[in-house]
Amino acid sequence: MLARARWKHGLTLPSLTTFPALARQLADIGRHCYERGWALGTSGNFSAVVSKEPLTLAITTSSVDKGLLEPAHIVAIDEGRRVLHGSGTPSAEAALHLAIVRSRGAGAVLHTHSVWSTILSEATTDGSLTIEGYEMLKGLEGVRSHEHRERLPIVENTQNWAAAAPQIEAMLREHPEAHGFLIRGHGLYTWGKDLAEAKRQIEILEFLFEVMGRKRGVAWQQ
Amino acid sequence: MLARARWKHGLTLPSLTTFPALARQLADIGRHCYERGWALGTSGNFSAVVSKEPLTLAITTSSVDKGLLEPAHIVAIDEGRRVLHGSGTPSAEAALHLAIVRSRGAGAVLHTHSVWSTILSEATTDGSLTIEGYEMLKGLEGVRSHEHRERLPIVENTQNWAAAAPQIEAMLREHPEAHGFLIRGHGLYTWGKDLAEAKRQIEILEFLFEVMGRKRGVAWQQ
Amino acid sequence: MLARARWKHGLTLPSLTTFPALARQLADIGRHCYERGWALGTSGNFSAVVSKEPLTLAITTSSVDKGLLEPAHIVAIDEGRRVLHGSGTPSAEAALHLAIVRSRGAGAVLHTHSVWSTILSEATTDGSLTIEGYEMLKGLEGVRSHEHRERLPIVENTQNWAAAAPQIEAMLREHPEAHGFLIRGHGLYTWGKDLAEAKRQIEILEFLFEVMGRKRGVAWQQ
Amino acid sequence: MLARARWKHGLTLPSLTTFPALARQLADIGRHCYERGWALGTSGNFSAVVSKEPLTLAITTSSVDKGLLEPAHIVAIDEGRRVLHGSGTPSAEAALHLAIVRSRGAGAVLHTHSVWSTILSEATTDGSLTIEGYEMLKGLEGVRSHEHRERLPIVENTQNWAAAAPQIEAMLREHPEAHGFLIRGHGLYTWGKDLAEAKRQIEILEFLFEVMGRKRGVAWQQ
Repeated sequence: MLARARWKHGLTLPSLTTFPALARQLADIGRHCYERGWALGTSGNFSAVVSKEPLTLAITTSSVDKGLLEPAHIVAIDEGRRVLHGSGTPSAEAALHLAIVRSRGAGAVLHTHSVWSTILSEATTDGSLTIEGYEMLKGLEGVRSHEHRERLPIVENTQNWAAAAPQIEAMLREHPEAHGFLIRGHGLYTWGKDLAEAKRQIEILEFLFEVMGRKRGVAWQQ
Repeated sequence: MLARARWKHGLTLPSLTTFPALARQLADIGRHCYERGWALGTSGNFSAVVSKEPLTLAITTSSVDKGLLEPAHIVAIDEGRRVLHGSGTPSAEAALHLAIVRSRGAGAVLHTHSVWSTILSEATTDGSLTIEGYEMLKGLEGVRSHEHRERLPIVENTQNWAAAAPQIEAMLREHPEAHGFLIRGHGLYTWGKDLAEAKRQIEILEFLFEVMGRKRGVAWQQ
Repeated sequence: MLARARWKHGLTLPSLTTFPALARQLADIGRHCYERGWALGTSGNFSAVVSKEPLTLAITTSSVDKGLLEPAHIVAIDEGRRVLHGSGTPSAEAALHLAIVRSRGAGAVLHTHSVWSTILSEATTDGSLTIEGYEMLKGLEGVRSHEHRERLPIVENTQNWAAAAPQIEAMLREHPEAHGFLIRGHGLYTWGKDLAEAKRQIEILEFLFEVMGRKRGVAWQQ
Repeated sequence: MLARARWKHGLTLPSLTTFPALARQLADIGRHCYERGWALGTSGNFSAVVSKEPLTLAITTSSVDKGLLEPAHIVAIDEGRRVLHGSGTPSAEAALHLAIVRSRGAGAVLHTHSVWSTILSEATTDGSLTIEGYEMLKGLEGVRSHEHRERLPIVENTQNWAAAAPQIEAMLREHPEAHGFLIRGHGLYTWGKDLAEAKRQIEILEFLFEVMGRKRGVAWQQ
């Protein structure tokens, strides 16, 4: 209860980089996403950089109900996905998190499964989702105007992210301005310099997905 | 308050099989489903196996507002639906719960009434609802890939489940891979080896129902 | 906080008929409806019978934000709408509550303004909304089968309910089986022998309105 | 937690005009809007008049996550947007708040970004959104009947509100009866004599936006 109260009611999210502090913040964010309906059941995974040299990543372990996520469900891994602290198997998508950290210099990576991101990931066929003209876009890092055009790549789903990680890194290099990407039928990845920034971007993008998804049900009749 | 805090913020759901422990967990899950809008009013019923030999089932009593569900509203029954512990009338659908426990070897059975399951139960005419291609399917027990095809049987509603139980058992034998089934105009049944697994499957299936229901309102215009 | 915790987590709603007890329960139910989005702002009003002979009704006062509803915002009135206990102006719709109590023998009357009830109140032109075939209908008092057909009258809105009360009583006599009625562009009235029953019926009817409203957005394409 | 409990469960919102009291109320309202999904991420900004002569306004600072809003994130500014109390940069839209206070004599101004207000701000092309015939309209200050016709102007978005403030003041003079206005692709502004009134109007307007947005997805098929 305390954790939730804190998250919702007033503590800042300082950019701490000790493993215990990050594990606590990741657990708070995971339950927050669960309560918003963006990480139901065991879906979703979340990570934050503990140190850059050598690269150490705090990340959720697999098969944990996100409504019950605790700091004890977070492990620290190295770049080869070996567990350095804590116990449990790191998320099967750890290779994706590491690819994003490497190619973007991110301090935190969040991955959610929401209803609207799932629907929109299947709604276009040209390999990306374009969002433009909304004030909310200014919540994305570095965006200064609603006239911004955000283009989120959509990649195909797979069950072997370790093998697919190089393609993801290539995709990220090709789209240096993208603030996230979608996996088809699966969900959203976004990131930030720290957890506070990545959490804010999740909310911004989920908001925009809902606007776009609902508008499709509205716009036809105009 | 404590109960809710615990459910949402951190205790695991150990596979305890004492009646008082299961009664408490069933009350927590019932209120959780109520808060999600999946068991409004007195709708929904929930059970867990106390012992297999002889079969004893902890189950919600009928006519209880699920927002007010307490351990005292749970009774233990035998295979003949006689009350062994606690007071109250076991749910009218107890025969269905027992049929599922017998034919699936389930440790827990959850039944909810959600808006989307009600709508989808009436949306197809071929006797089943098929879901495939979504990452979220991996939250179902034993599913390893989004390429899984889940086929949920849809059965007609009745007010005499004691009489209908043999047909339900036959239907479950015919569809050995189904992780749940729908009753037309009524709701969802799912189950698991314990309450944690069954609760996770409720969330997974409800998520997928919402995606499918909303996509119908989106897809037509493409 | 305590009030909310109690409502959601375990106390029964005993059929107490002292004014302070009913005022507390009405405040709990009002905030509950607010949190569900059924009584935003100052909308909605709620009452319960304190005594039948002479008729004394506990009812919400007007212009109170339902998210801030307290027992002090409830007054007791007589059949002539004179305030017997507490301070404040009884709801402008008190005449409607009294008409329902008289013609139905109700112990509690609840009136909410939800999005779906507002939409459905305008969706038919024949003066009523018919709901049938849903298991959830069994949550209405005395309904034993999903085959029940519920027909909710829809009346025109007015700003003079004192003048309109006789027509409402006539309408209630013409539809002796209706468990509630809609006011066009306005919301739902339902009632019960006590607050627990009326509260359950609000949830059942709101659930069914959502199913019917969403189905309209789904069904067209089949 | 206390703050939230108070907001939802019973304290009145007295029209205090000391800066610390208003800062606390603004933080409560901001988190409340965040929880309703109307101020996700850093979106939305909120103000209240501390004194009229000389004009002093308590207002949220920019770039604060509204789920983490605290009294320390509120500053007091003068009519030239200079910070008098507290630290931080006042919202970039402070000029808009001041324009509304000047032209309407408002004691509080609230600005939210909701899904439905965003959608409806783009749904009409004649420069305004008209809402009429709903009982909920009576929640707007001074409205006595559902027959009221509310016409909300829609203005184009900009990133320079200091420059645009004169046009906004002119628009407000041209529409003296409007209880709010929309910015295209951006969100809603509304106001009141105090925070309680402005908060109530936010809820009323958001409710009506949802009704109108959903009706568009329903009405076409009739």
